[in-house]
Amino acid sequence: MKRTIYDADHESFRSSVREFLDREVIPHVESHAAEKALPRDYWLAAGRQGFLGLEIPEEYGGSGAGDYRFNAVFFEELSKVNAALGSCTGIHADITAPYLVELGTEEQKKKWLPGVASGEILLAIGMTEPSGGSDLAALKTTAVRDGDDWVINGSKTFITNGYSADLVITAVRTSPEKKARGITLFAIPSDAEGFSRGRKLDKVGQDESDTAELFFENVRLGDDHIIGELDGGFIHMMQKLPQERLGCAISNVAHAKQILVETLQYSKDRQAFGQGIGSFQHNKFLLAELFTQIEVTESYIDQCVVAHDKGELSAVDAAKAKWWSSQVQNEILDHCVQLHGGYGFMNEYRVARAWRDARVSKIWAGSNEIMKELIGRDLGL
Amino acid sequence: MKRTIYDADHESFRSSVREFLDREVIPHVESHAAEKALPRDYWLAAGRQGFLGLEIPEEYGGSGAGDYRFNAVFFEELSKVNAALGSCTGIHADITAPYLVELGTEEQKKKWLPGVASGEILLAIGMTEPSGGSDLAALKTTAVRDGDDWVINGSKTFITNGYSADLVITAVRTSPEKKARGITLFAIPSDAEGFSRGRKLDKVGQDESDTAELFFENVRLGDDHIIGELDGGFIHMMQKLPQERLGCAISNVAHAKQILVETLQYSKDRQAFGQGIGSFQHNKFLLAELFTQIEVTESYIDQCVVAHDKGELSAVDAAKAKWWSSQVQNEILDHCVQLHGGYGFMNEYRVARAWRDARVSKIWAGSNEIMKELIGRDLGL
Amino acid sequence: MKRTIYDADHESFRSSVREFLDREVIPHVESHAAEKALPRDYWLAAGRQGFLGLEIPEEYGGSGAGDYRFNAVFFEELSKVNAALGSCTGIHADITAPYLVELGTEEQKKKWLPGVASGEILLAIGMTEPSGGSDLAALKTTAVRDGDDWVINGSKTFITNGYSADLVITAVRTSPEKKARGITLFAIPSDAEGFSRGRKLDKVGQDESDTAELFFENVRLGDDHIIGELDGGFIHMMQKLPQERLGCAISNVAHAKQILVETLQYSKDRQAFGQGIGSFQHNKFLLAELFTQIEVTESYIDQCVVAHDKGELSAVDAAKAKWWSSQVQNEILDHCVQLHGGYGFMNEYRVARAWRDARVSKIWAGSNEIMKELIGRDLGL
Amino acid sequence: MKRTIYDADHESFRSSVREFLDREVIPHVESHAAEKALPRDYWLAAGRQGFLGLEIPEEYGGSGAGDYRFNAVFFEELSKVNAALGSCTGIHADITAPYLVELGTEEQKKKWLPGVASGEILLAIGMTEPSGGSDLAALKTTAVRDGDDWVINGSKTFITNGYSADLVITAVRTSPEKKARGITLFAIPSDAEGFSRGRKLDKVGQDESDTAELFFENVRLGDDHIIGELDGGFIHMMQKLPQERLGCAISNVAHAKQILVETLQYSKDRQAFGQGIGSFQHNKFLLAELFTQIEVTESYIDQCVVAHDKGELSAVDAAKAKWWSSQVQNEILDHCVQLHGGYGFMNEYRVARAWRDARVSKIWAGSNEIMKELIGRDLGL
Repeated sequence: MKRTIYDADHESFRSSVREFLDREVIPHVESHAAEKALPRDYWLAAGRQGFLGLEIPEEYGGSGAGDYRFNAVFFEELSKVNAALGSCTGIHADITAPYLVELGTEEQKKKWLPGVASGEILLAIGMTEPSGGSDLAALKTTAVRDGDDWVINGSKTFITNGYSADLVITAVRTSPEKKARGITLFAIPSDAEGFSRGRKLDKVGQDESDTAELFFENVRLGDDHIIGELDGGFIHMMQKLPQERLGCAISNVAHAKQILVETLQYSKDRQAFGQGIGSFQHNKFLLAELFTQIEVTESYIDQCVVAHDKGELSAVDAAKAKWWSSQVQNEILDHCVQLHGGYGFMNEYRVARAWRDARVSKIWAGSNEIMKELIGRDLGL
Repeated sequence: MKRTIYDADHESFRSSVREFLDREVIPHVESHAAEKALPRDYWLAAGRQGFLGLEIPEEYGGSGAGDYRFNAVFFEELSKVNAALGSCTGIHADITAPYLVELGTEEQKKKWLPGVASGEILLAIGMTEPSGGSDLAALKTTAVRDGDDWVINGSKTFITNGYSADLVITAVRTSPEKKARGITLFAIPSDAEGFSRGRKLDKVGQDESDTAELFFENVRLGDDHIIGELDGGFIHMMQKLPQERLGCAISNVAHAKQILVETLQYSKDRQAFGQGIGSFQHNKFLLAELFTQIEVTESYIDQCVVAHDKGELSAVDAAKAKWWSSQVQNEILDHCVQLHGGYGFMNEYRVARAWRDARVSKIWAGSNEIMKELIGRDLGL
Repeated sequence: MKRTIYDADHESFRSSVREFLDREVIPHVESHAAEKALPRDYWLAAGRQGFLGLEIPEEYGGSGAGDYRFNAVFFEELSKVNAALGSCTGIHADITAPYLVELGTEEQKKKWLPGVASGEILLAIGMTEPSGGSDLAALKTTAVRDGDDWVINGSKTFITNGYSADLVITAVRTSPEKKARGITLFAIPSDAEGFSRGRKLDKVGQDESDTAELFFENVRLGDDHIIGELDGGFIHMMQKLPQERLGCAISNVAHAKQILVETLQYSKDRQAFGQGIGSFQHNKFLLAELFTQIEVTESYIDQCVVAHDKGELSAVDAAKAKWWSSQVQNEILDHCVQLHGGYGFMNEYRVARAWRDARVSKIWAGSNEIMKELIGRDLGL
Repeated sequence: MKRTIYDADHESFRSSVREFLDREVIPHVESHAAEKALPRDYWLAAGRQGFLGLEIPEEYGGSGAGDYRFNAVFFEELSKVNAALGSCTGIHADITAPYLVELGTEEQKKKWLPGVASGEILLAIGMTEPSGGSDLAALKTTAVRDGDDWVINGSKTFITNGYSADLVITAVRTSPEKKARGITLFAIPSDAEGFSRGRKLDKVGQDESDTAELFFENVRLGDDHIIGELDGGFIHMMQKLPQERLGCAISNVAHAKQILVETLQYSKDRQAFGQGIGSFQHNKFLLAELFTQIEVTESYIDQCVVAHDKGELSAVDAAKAKWWSSQVQNEILDHCVQLHGGYGFMNEYRVARAWRDARVSKIWAGSNEIMKELIGRDLGL
């Protein structure tokens, strides 16, 4: 169905994003995969275009669009190139930057936001720990008061951008006895003494993203590195969840739809038994189902975008968007692989990589099971 | 997610529909099921409220709302009572009446529309034949020219409202050699000589609707009973398809959602092993999934309603709405039955009837397979 | 795949069952559905053939086959006629009779078993209570000592054969404080004072079976009506579970397979767009999937039959057989309905009734959720 | 359910296979993955144990077991190590070797079989072509008579063992006008002039297998390299299909079951929110479902093994085994990944690799769609 949430300004912005991607990114995607990271050049180029500052007010070097639909357009176009491009950029600009914008002190904003907008300061967010998964109450990384400083010890894992990040917004336990309510966010610079990183993790997909473990050994920071309220980290993170989940959902849909469109074309081009394979009734019905499924899902996510733009998207509706879209994405891509036959198992085909890339979307940003738990609670169960 | 397509006028109208249903319909639903038909009293009462004339201009006795969202609200509320109430009323007011309104001559409109609006003339539409299913090119009911008259012979089956209808818009072959392009629509009055009906069909569900076979044995009618163009029936029917399919989709979603909401309540009230059964994690996750599924689907259908209201809903997007929503409805209701345990198999429980009622939605109005065929063609396959 | 568990003796027995069904049962199935019960004539005729005594030693009037594969053949053939025939007969001969055979005193066996084998004493089993579902620890029907008697009060629901049964093996609480371990089985004759029945329940399917609520109001019985050990009812029931679940599984598969075979034939006979509908690739692949699914399932159930015949079938493996086969049955029959188009929604078609009949198989005999709970526990979870 | 098809001899053989794997293979699997091939040492070691000659008569250096269950045990144990080990070894010993054993001349057998059994001559089979997929009638590699020789030109792709093979049984068109009936099998030695290989293909999974394109440029061979009948290749291949498909099915089930068992253990060990994650009801039910699914499937495959051992397994029943087991394998492994959370996306975890490895099983050896086509035809559709 024709989408209705974007107007001419958004589509014009989309064109500029596409031009940028065609010119500065797509020629290098093989190199990104080989290096298992996006190079600094990418971040700087995106920054020059103003794409990294959509969430950042103009006074701190951003474009402060104030209309989330521009973010949505941006992440759609990134995700159509590949999933990792969307997720890495999303972690920086859409998920982590808002912590600084909305919770940072004037001093913090002045210090870091211009670099975030320009791509000189790459952000990551450190929540997950090796032992803990989605259970924030079990967080083990600690910050202990020592004079005017905090001394941080612990580790984080599965950190997107972790290998390259310059500043990591990190969830740290400051009050051992207060479970989820004893967590504080610290902005930890990667050049802090005691900060180190593990190797780039060898992942099933999203080769282009660098994901790493982070280690904190007696990292010493002052109060000026606390983001938001002391012991307020859990609340702060909860407030950011709708945007994080919605961002995932936008990428899930755009990525799956793009590969589906390409697969439709492939199914017309690829001949077997004397006809395009897509015209076999089994495949024809299947493609009809998949296009229905993606459009129905897109419709829901679009309405979530509109709601979020008005500040009305609930964490629970975003949870629905997140789990549903990742499930749909994975189902669609599995069928797309099958429609490619043996080529679907070859990494040189986009569909093969897309299938690998997508798998994590059911796991990260709160696993789909956690999403269902939250929705169930919201139903009063 | 909060729905956004209705404003205060629509919600006020919804209230008046609900009041009408509470007062005039719900006390009689058991009798409808026992009689296997909606009584004339229902139609007259709905007519008095102006609910049957939403598609009919004021000059012919209707309210001519000109805003399809009122239709949508009306069918949502009907379907929340039970599926048959929605489908029978839909056949009359939403699917068949527009043929007269949009294709009728001035004389035809004056003759029939006031009665349609008042409930005195009950409509049905006769497309399906015993041998033919969805294949209009194989239509066997014929009208042969005899002087100034047409002589109609043949039969139709699975005709909703068939046992009670006063006027049946019927697809009849007028040009044998022209396949789909040789079909003409006739308005056949039930008191025409040679018109007869079979018994009320014994259906799996939708007990409250009367469904019947119709027989035409030398039914003699003049040109004044032709609706639209001679040999133009196929085109006319195609043009009505978006609204028919959308109407089905609206009912599918409203019906399924209502039963799901009731099932959620049941799952809180029903105790087992010392707790509400809905709070067992398996059920909790299941209900989370079902609510997500219905809301995602509702979002798509809502956008279809908006598009249709602007005259922009394509037959293909309506086909997506139809098959998807009926699939979703059936999946949800099957789980709702399961959540009711043994009671879900007892006809005195609403969920049991709803489950039976819903099954036909994957079959009628163009089977889901036909919908996928159409969508596949639209994809160029 | 060719089945291997039956030899010539079993197939010869199968022929005799089929002859019996053709002659004595199939001509009356419409009447069974209309009466919502199997008539006594059926039971007596089956008894005369020796079919009701497969589990009963010869000295008590049975045939004491001692080879469960004959039971399996019998229930397969019954279920191919319709699901209720299998379930009602199964409750009598396969599920309830063994309680008397294996747990009864010499006196009890002499008193009741000959009538069970002849069809003069119809059996039912009373476990489920209105408030309790699958939670035996919450059983509320009680027997209280009063002199040498027990005085029984309470009620049971969803009792197959309940309206016609002459003797009901009933789970009754004899030790209030001992939860599941305080339950005793009583054989309650339907002519006992204080025993009464509700109406035949109006079910979604299995019209041919009489299902009823039973009420016990100061029913006074002596120790001679206790079956097995005092307070041993839970253990007794647990020991019978493999056979009950396996019986369900056998019926599920035989019923679904029969309807699938008939649907395959229908899909060849029914023409649309100039060809048999089964030859459209979508339907062809679907039928290929369904036949695979039923044969894979049949293979498992067959191996369960072999294991049970050796006394080696565990309750957990039987639980797998039960839930899986009922799930498969329902999936297959839903597709069979769809392949019948509009006729699949008409009760005069076998597929329509089969679809309604099958639904309960996911619910009864321990719901599929309970089965999964048991399997999960067996996995150490 | 306890399996019944293997006796003490088979289990003793299984122990010897396991010892071999523990000693000679498992220490090197990381190196296999890094090298993207099994080294010659593996083949020679397996040959020394007699494992590569199960299909080869003793006179040609094999063990000629004559009981397919030993093959089944062997491939189960290989597949439990990883999927590629099973598939590469299967291509050599179970799929390709029988062409030589059953169709080879005495001279051919003496020349090649001892090396096949010892691992010195590694086999591959060349059917698929870049343009052709499953459509053998469209085969484009040709052999043209030139004097007493045949001159072969063309290419093959997706050839397992292709990069290392010493001898490739290759389907070649010898009669252009005869479609499928104009195909001949040639044994093409890798040292033949004009034979070359492309690079090792970069696959989504099964890193340990070397898969390659093969090119034939004026490869000149005599009649002594024809395997079986001239123009008889299609029939020969059809006759080998049951064993090929069954071999796939055995590996699918063994591989999936092994990972499922490991995942069950992981789900007990991994703690979240204070308990083993497997004991959350959602996961508990899921694991119950997955174990049921794998055991039901295993039961069917086991019966196929028994049938095949008797020479009674039809190509169609083997097709059912192939598509069903690969579907089940993929569904199970996807859930296993999910149960591992973020670790399921990390290649160092076995579950992650297994998920990637398994994907091809729905595609190769005749795609699942081709299997359904064949089953549909067998149903008379």
